[in-house]
This record gives sequence, C-alpha cells and structure tokens, in this order.
Amino acid sequence: MTFSLGPNQYGKAGVRLVTVQRDGDRHSITDLTIASALSGDLEGTHYTGDNSAVLATDTQKNTVYAFAREFGVGEPEAFGLRLGQHFVATQAPIHRARITIEQHRWERIVVDGQPAPHSFARSGGEIRRAQVEVTEDGVAVSSGLGDLTVLNSTASEFHGFPRDKYTTLPETRERILATSVDAWWDHDSAEVEWGKAYEEASGALLTAFASTYSYSLQQTLFAMGSHVLRTVPSIAEVRLSLPNKHHNLVDLAPFGLDNPDQVYVAPTEPYGLIQGTVRRDGATYTEGPALW
Amino acid sequence: MTFSLGPNQYGKAGVRLVTVQRDGDRHSITDLTIASALSGDLEGTHYTGDNSAVLATDTQKNTVYAFAREFGVGEPEAFGLRLGQHFVATQAPIHRARITIEQHRWERIVVDGQPAPHSFARSGGEIRRAQVEVTEDGVAVSSGLGDLTVLNSTASEFHGFPRDKYTTLPETRERILATSVDAWWDHDSAEVEWGKAYEEASGALLTAFASTYSYSLQQTLFAMGSHVLRTVPSIAEVRLSLPNKHHNLVDLAPFGLDNPDQVYVAPTEPYGLIQGTVRRDGATYTEGPALW
Amino acid sequence: MTFSLGPNQYGKAGVRLVTVQRDGDRHSITDLTIASALSGDLEGTHYTGDNSAVLATDTQKNTVYAFAREFGVGEPEAFGLRLGQHFVATQAPIHRARITIEQHRWERIVVDGQPAPHSFARSGGEIRRAQVEVTEDGVAVSSGLGDLTVLNSTASEFHGFPRDKYTTLPETRERILATSVDAWWDHDSAEVEWGKAYEEASGALLTAFASTYSYSLQQTLFAMGSHVLRTVPSIAEVRLSLPNKHHNLVDLAPFGLDNPDQVYVAPTEPYGLIQGTVRRDGATYTEGPALW
Amino acid sequence: MTFSLGPNQYGKAGVRLVTVQRDGDRHSITDLTIASALSGDLEGTHYTGDNSAVLATDTQKNTVYAFAREFGVGEPEAFGLRLGQHFVATQAPIHRARITIEQHRWERIVVDGQPAPHSFARSGGEIRRAQVEVTEDGVAVSSGLGDLTVLNSTASEFHGFPRDKYTTLPETRERILATSVDAWWDHDSAEVEWGKAYEEASGALLTAFASTYSYSLQQTLFAMGSHVLRTVPSIAEVRLSLPNKHHNLVDLAPFGLDNPDQVYVAPTEPYGLIQGTVRRDGATYTEGPALW
Repeated sequence: MTFSLGPNQYGKAGVRLVTVQRDGDRHSITDLTIASALSGDLEGTHYTGDNSAVLATDTQKNTVYAFAREFGVGEPEAFGLRLGQHFVATQAPIHRARITIEQHRWERIVVDGQPAPHSFARSGGEIRRAQVEVTEDGVAVSSGLGDLTVLNSTASEFHGFPRDKYTTLPETRERILATSVDAWWDHDSAEVEWGKAYEEASGALLTAFASTYSYSLQQTLFAMGSHVLRTVPSIAEVRLSLPNKHHNLVDLAPFGLDNPDQVYVAPTEPYGLIQGTVRRDGATYTEGPALW
Repeated sequence: MTFSLGPNQYGKAGVRLVTVQRDGDRHSITDLTIASALSGDLEGTHYTGDNSAVLATDTQKNTVYAFAREFGVGEPEAFGLRLGQHFVATQAPIHRARITIEQHRWERIVVDGQPAPHSFARSGGEIRRAQVEVTEDGVAVSSGLGDLTVLNSTASEFHGFPRDKYTTLPETRERILATSVDAWWDHDSAEVEWGKAYEEASGALLTAFASTYSYSLQQTLFAMGSHVLRTVPSIAEVRLSLPNKHHNLVDLAPFGLDNPDQVYVAPTEPYGLIQGTVRRDGATYTEGPALW
Repeated sequence: MTFSLGPNQYGKAGVRLVTVQRDGDRHSITDLTIASALSGDLEGTHYTGDNSAVLATDTQKNTVYAFAREFGVGEPEAFGLRLGQHFVATQAPIHRARITIEQHRWERIVVDGQPAPHSFARSGGEIRRAQVEVTEDGVAVSSGLGDLTVLNSTASEFHGFPRDKYTTLPETRERILATSVDAWWDHDSAEVEWGKAYEEASGALLTAFASTYSYSLQQTLFAMGSHVLRTVPSIAEVRLSLPNKHHNLVDLAPFGLDNPDQVYVAPTEPYGLIQGTVRRDGATYTEGPALW
Repeated sequence: MTFSLGPNQYGKAGVRLVTVQRDGDRHSITDLTIASALSGDLEGTHYTGDNSAVLATDTQKNTVYAFAREFGVGEPEAFGLRLGQHFVATQAPIHRARITIEQHRWERIVVDGQPAPHSFARSGGEIRRAQVEVTEDGVAVSSGLGDLTVLNSTASEFHGFPRDKYTTLPETRERILATSVDAWWDHDSAEVEWGKAYEEASGALLTAFASTYSYSLQQTLFAMGSHVLRTVPSIAEVRLSLPNKHHNLVDLAPFGLDNPDQVYVAPTEPYGLIQGTVRRDGATYTEGPALW
C-alpha cells in the first residue's frame, strides 16, 4: 500500500508590518498583517526532508519587510502582486504564490477641530482584506472585508417558512436584523484602482444592507452582493458569509409589562449562518478564497 | 482549626441588553453588557446552603430587562444607579450592589450622503464603561473606557534610563509610541451629565495623547490623566493601564537597505505595561474599580 | 446586466448540546457544538424573500435537541449522519445537508484514587471534530481534530534550503519543533467504528510526530498523515494544517552567558504555516472539509 | 488646581520563556509567561520624563532570560522570588517588585505504551499561576490556577431563595453544576515546597468540588476553599471566582418528548458569577492578587 502527497502549500503567516510615510510633519501610516503561501515542486521536503526547493518562511518574511522599504506598500492588492510575482519569478520550483493581507485601519485623531499631523486612533470593526494568487500563467486578485457589524432596527420580516414537527418559531412581521459581514469579491482584472474599488464595494455593501426591506437574510445577502457588482464593474463575483445575530424580544409579561419592540436580548449563540455567492453573468475570472 | 468567610459577592454577568428607541421612523439603539454583584449577609449560603438571603442571579437579570422597559436605559451610569439602588433598597440582607456596564457604540450608516433612519454600523475599538456602587450609606460612580488603540508616529523619545548588566536597549530620539487605553475615572458626585462628561473625558485622553511630546509612556500617562481632570471638574481620580505596544524598526542592512524610520514590526508580545493614577489634590470621593 | 445566485448554504451554528447518560449512580456526559448547513432549491428566498423552501434555522436547532432525546447522541459522526439524513429526507427542496460537530472532551475527576461517578474536568487542548455531508446520492464522512499542541525538544534539523538575497536564517542541526495540529481525514465508508477509528487516528498523529526525526515540518506532516492511513484502513485522505510555532534560542552572549539549547523565546507571531494532504493511492471517496 | 501621581507600577508583560532540561536523552520542558511590575520613586518619569529611575522594561525581560540560564527556572514561585529580589536589591529607586507567572503544562507523549523521552503534548485547561511581591521589608507569595473547568452532573440543588416581583426561576432539586475555577491562595511563608503545595491545593479544589453535595455554588466555593486550607498548612487564604456555567434543561414538550435530566443547552452568557474568600482564622500573611 502506498501513500502520496496531495495539494499542499507552505509559508509565513502573522507577518506584522507597520510603515510610516513622512510628508514633512504630516505622516500617514499603513498597518498590515501578511501571509504568504507557496506551492510547487515540493515532494522532496515531504518525502525525505530534502529542502533544496524550500525557500525558508523566514526569507519570505524578510522579503516583505525589504519590499516595504524598496518599493513602498501602497494598496494591499498591489503589494501582494509584487510579492507574489517575486516568489514565482525567482524560485524555479515555486509555481504558485498566494499572498493574503489584512489591513487594519486608522483614522487621524482630531485635536481642537483639526486633524493631528502624526497621531492616529485605530478604527474599530471593519478589516480590509486582499488575496493575490500568482502563477506562471497569470494572476488573480480578490478583495474583501471582515468584522463589519451592522444592524437594522426594523424593515425586516420572516414568515412563510415550512412548519414541520420540530418547528416552534412564530412568524414575525417586525424584527431586528443584524449581522457581521465577512466578504470576498473577485476582480476580472489586475488593472484596477484598488483603493477606489474598495471604498465603492464596501460602501455598496452598507448601502444595500440599509436600503433593503428584508424578508430573509438570504434576500439581503443577494441584494448586498448584487449592489457590489452593480457599483464596481471590475468585480465578477461576491461571496458573503453572514451570521444572523439574533436579537430576541424579551418576554416581560411575567413582570406585568408589555414589550412593543423595545427590549431585546442578543445571545452570542446559537446563530444563523447564511452564506452565498452572487455572480455577474458571463464574467471571466479566477475564483478566489473560499468563505465556507 | 477553623476557617471563615472573607470578602465575597455574587451576581449575574454577561447580561446582553439591546434597546430600540423609536421616534417615528427615526430610531436609535443602545447596546449594553451588564453585570450585577451583590454582597451582604451571605454567610448562610456559604456555610450551609441556606439561600434565604440569595436573590437569584436569574432575578437580577430579569430586573435588568424589566427596568429597561419600565424606565428606559439612558446613560449607563444612570441605569446602573437605578439598578443598584433597587437591589439595596428591596433586599434587606444586601448591603452593597455593584453594577458594571459596558456600552458598545454604533454609528448611523450613511446612504447617499444622508444618515439612515434605522440602520447602524458598530463602531469599532473604544468600549465605554460605567461602574456604580450603591450601599446604604451612598453611591460611588466611576466611568471609563477600554480598547481605544492610539499611535503617535513621532514625537516620542526614550533615553536617560539606567544601564545595568542586563541592559542592551539603545537610547532613542525617535520612536513610534502606541498603546491601547484602558481607563477608569471616579466622580466626586452622582449628579453629573454623564454623556457630556464621557465625551469630554474621552476627548481629553485623545487630545493629551496626541499633544504630548513624550520622553516616556509614563509621562504621556500623567499628561492624559491630568488633562481629564482639567477638562471635567467632577472627576477626582483617573487610573490608566497603558500597554506599550512596541513598534520595532526592522534592520534592513542585511539586504543592503537603510531604514530611516519607515518600516516597523509590531509584535504582539512582550509588551511594556505602564499603570498609574492621577489624582486631583484635595478631592473627596470613593475609589472605584481597580485596573491592576 | 444580470447577476445570479452561485453556491450557497444556510443553517444554524453554535448549537451547544450537553447530554447526561445516567447508568444508575454512574453518569457519563457528552458535550458538543453543532452546526447544520442546508442547500438546495433556494433561489426564491434569495431573489424575492419567498421562504417556502427555507426550513428555519431555529427548527434545525430544535431538531438537534429532539434527536438527542429520541435517539441518543453516540459518536458525533453517527449523530451527524442521522441529522443530515433527516433534513434531506424530509425537506423536498433540500438536496444537501452538512453537519459539523465539535466534541469537547471531559475526563472523570479522581477522588482518593477512585474515578468519581458523576464529576468531570474538561480535558484541555484537543477538540474532536466530525463533518457529515448527506445528499440524495449518498453520504460522505470526515473526522478530525484541532488544538492539539505538541513539541519535540530535539530530533529536528533544518538546512539545505536555498539562500537568496533576502535569506538570513542560519542552518540548524538542533531545534525545537512545535505545532498545533489541525486535521481532517476522510473515510471511504460510512460503516466505521467511529470511536475506535478516532482513537487510532489521533494516536497515530501523536506517535508519528514523536517518532519522526525531522528535517522539515513538511516531512513530519507527511509522516503523520501516512501513519494515520497506515493505522486506519477506512481513511482515504488526511489533510493537515500545521503552524510552525517557532522557539528561538535566546542570544545570551551580551550577558556573558552561553546558551547550549536551553533557553528559548516562543513568540506568537510570525509563524510558519505548513499545509498538506496525504492520500491513499487508489482510494475512492468524497473529499471533505477544506483546511485552507 | 493641582494634580498628583497616585499608585503606579510599570514593567514588561507577555514574556514567553520555554526552557529545555536535558538529562541525557531524556528531556523535560518548562513553559512560562512572565510579567514584572516595579514601583518606587517614579515621580520623575511621570512629571518630566526623567528616566533616571526607570530600569527599562526591555532590561527586565533580558533579566528573565539570563536568570533562566544562570540559575535555572525550577518552581515558578522560586523563580519569581529570585527575579523580584534582584530588582529591589539592585535598583535603589525601586521599592517593590511584583512578578506574576503563568505556567503552561505539558505531558509526555506516550508511544507504544512508553513515555517518549523528548516529545510532549500541551495539557489543556488548567493554567498554574504564581505571584511574588518583594519589598525591602520582605516577601509575599501567592499561588493559584485558572481555566480549570469542572462539572457535576448531579448532586446539586437550588431552592429556598427569595421571590420578588422579578423572580421567575423555579426551584430545583436536580441540576448540573459547572464552573471554571479561577483561584489565588496566599502563603504565610516563603519556605514552602512549591510543587508539592500546588499539587495538593489543586487536588483539594477538585476533590471538594466533586465531593460536595451542593445547595448553592457559594456553598461549593466555601467547601473548596476550606479543603485547600485543610490540606495545605502554609496557605492562609483562598480567593475563588467561579462563574456559574448554566446548563439549562431543554423543554422538549413541543416535540412530544419528555426530558428526564438528559438534554441540556449550555449558553455562553449570561452566567452567574460567585466570588468569595475563605480565610484560616488567626493566620498572618500579606494578601496577594485580587480576583475582583
């Protein structure tokens, strides 16, 4: 009986990079967490510990820091492309490089009504993401975000679902709809204004969430994905993973009180989990990172 | 040999309360995590399991939800006072109630340049806190915040420290200074405009952080605490716990590159931890929750 | 321009189930976190909010608790099969059910040298996992584990890797090798003694980790996966994701001390990340959950 | 109006130290996370940034690693004493050093029924802790643990509690009692066999938890603390913080099923929180770290 190596990759993760851009007294900062993952002719190290094809993960990390100085960082998609292309171009046994970047966002502190020149507060919530895949045949770029928690306090119903022996949930015409958006979208090109595209895509997610009168979180998901595609022409597909963060109306009757949609408990678990893909019909692209 | 009961308290923690205030089509929301802790004549339950003095923690939780409907929530300090006073007033064996509240902040989603009427995104980072202690003799109110991460990209030096056998750190005239602010401040009164005081105190922390040319994080800490006291007259004492989130300049010389204060690595650990108290001289108050 | 729905699924996650089996005074407990995810003819709810095909996630949760009483839980793979088959069999629009289960392990507390009849301490670390996918055509069962942290204090080398412009890592003949095992393995059958297979597979991972003299974590990964296949005939493929939890020898020379492989710092990040698949040649099966 | 500095301390936290003890081919390992906190004449750095009294936190970290080589680590209490005494003895402005240590426990991997000589798996759950406070007047040593999760599947009742307007909880004669033990205990001496005392104290906690027929978690808390004092003569006081990790019997009646204490849901929150102190009457000692 024999065993063989299937799909594999290796790299460095958790590479924390902060850069300061100094334009005189006025600074800006970039704060990234980067992972690289390489694959290729790697049977040797798996079968016998022959490391002649294994660019050390420490070297991959060093390359991140050196490139930040040599070329600057810029948009995460562009930085990822540069890194990925370097690994594939310079390491003969490496046939694919995946670079995944999370960008932590900071805003300028305001002092006496004026934005401070070199002081920043970390923006909470939303994390921007990019993933780049480089092979000898080409590149694929995806962008996305995580940890964007949103809530509609009305304009959400849920009814018309099937009732079996185990169904106790009442139908409702009025509920809170809340979720934490986890999203990836794939571009059909690597020639995109990444910063602009990100702002438009993330804005479209927010706008569609706020503007959709919802009969199910699935419907909201499709509306959000569609609005991203409608807003940013370079995006071919959007994948969304949306936990349904339940807000349950508290029964106050035992205390002689009504509760006209005012007081809710928000349990951590269990939670619904709605995951879906929205595609531009006819688009050509390479599918990026999976969400489930 | 005998053993006896020392200081103790009990209550319910992790009580998640979300309320919707509906002003026609325009809603606002409040999102709190609440803990109550009662103490008093509780020897019975500890020594023999006699629960006649033990208001159930489930009842404490119910009271939170009922009060949110009966009286509204308002500012967390005021809600905590109402809850604490109720427990001490109605439960003869209970001599002290501590109510601790974390407020999760949300901002209105903007659609087409207009704030949406009932759609919200959770503001990241900063958590607002309040702790109220009610006894038969009176009340003590503290406010605070956590998870406010800030960074100065210059205007920070560190030198003049002693060098012993184990000292290798070079002196520096230029470094990034970053921290995550964890703070409590104690009021000398329970008659305060809580919302206004919070905005002023948290604003003072930010302003002082951004405005202080720093020779040590301790100096920045004292400047931050002093500015809170200077800005909000009702505050008698500020306690701050400030991790020194190191940003280390990367040595790029092995790659033939200089690094003129541009490329940094930001490790999770180890981290400095600077903790201190700033007091208004002559103030009278009851000290609130400890940070260390 | 038109957009359409791509791959999707929905369900309930974070369903916490604890059961007590009472055999007279001697109890045993089972502690699971369960997620169900259904897919099928779900265009309606996405396009128009028509929920007639959407078995409520609340109903899915109820089914978990009811089945635990009606049929008992038993091994997580078997419980997952029962749940998945129920959803596909009873809901005409549902064509695939995925049930994912994490089992939290407990051991009996020992009192005076005797295992207590109904007292347990949670075993740390290792989480057992199962995932079952049921379609109208058949079933696929995968098992796995997470959070199993292991360390070899010697018998690990790393050298012979390529040196480019960005390589500074020295070669080493002696290092600590540590990782936290995250694994899935796919069975070629649904007729397996699940408990026995799990014990054998997890034991094989430990044995191979401890017994492999390692020239790379990739080599250790392949040895671990191969040993699982060698030990459990029903397993067709093993996928492993192994962070290289670096332990760096501390340079004590500035303090006049040597460090003959004794004192290490164990940073949280960055970390290597080695991910690979080991397959039984010629095996027939359905590939289960992805690890990357 | 003037402001002044109140209580303060500073140091390094998150110092990760792993040591390998090599006894021929048979190794053992020690895995600690260490924090040091110094206080003393530190007005200068707070008021003006004068760092002449500030032993750098980087130096504190270096000292940890150097001492691990020079003296070995041994029991965490002993290592903490050595570190604390060094800082107070060598730094004139420093009048108090607090060293806090968490020990992560590992067990030997068993291969073919034999414990492996240099392969280890991290034991989950329980974290051992020590805190040492050194001043010019003497030392105080506390030990403790965290993350020890335990459960009794019966032998727990809760009734006889007061019922007010907000009480809905039914009385119960049969419930699951589960908690995660967070404990500190203070020694009346620094001349203790630390390893033995820890094993005895942690064993006493487990034994008392398992052996107490409980009418309230407070009663169990007092029994646990008392049994530690009874078992280890050098311990003067025990402080325990015990979340009541509720396990709620699921109502299966809607599905036509009974539930004779078999099927439970274990929500993350809210949770009861029971905190108390058990003291040896007449003991003399210095109180250690607070738990609430």
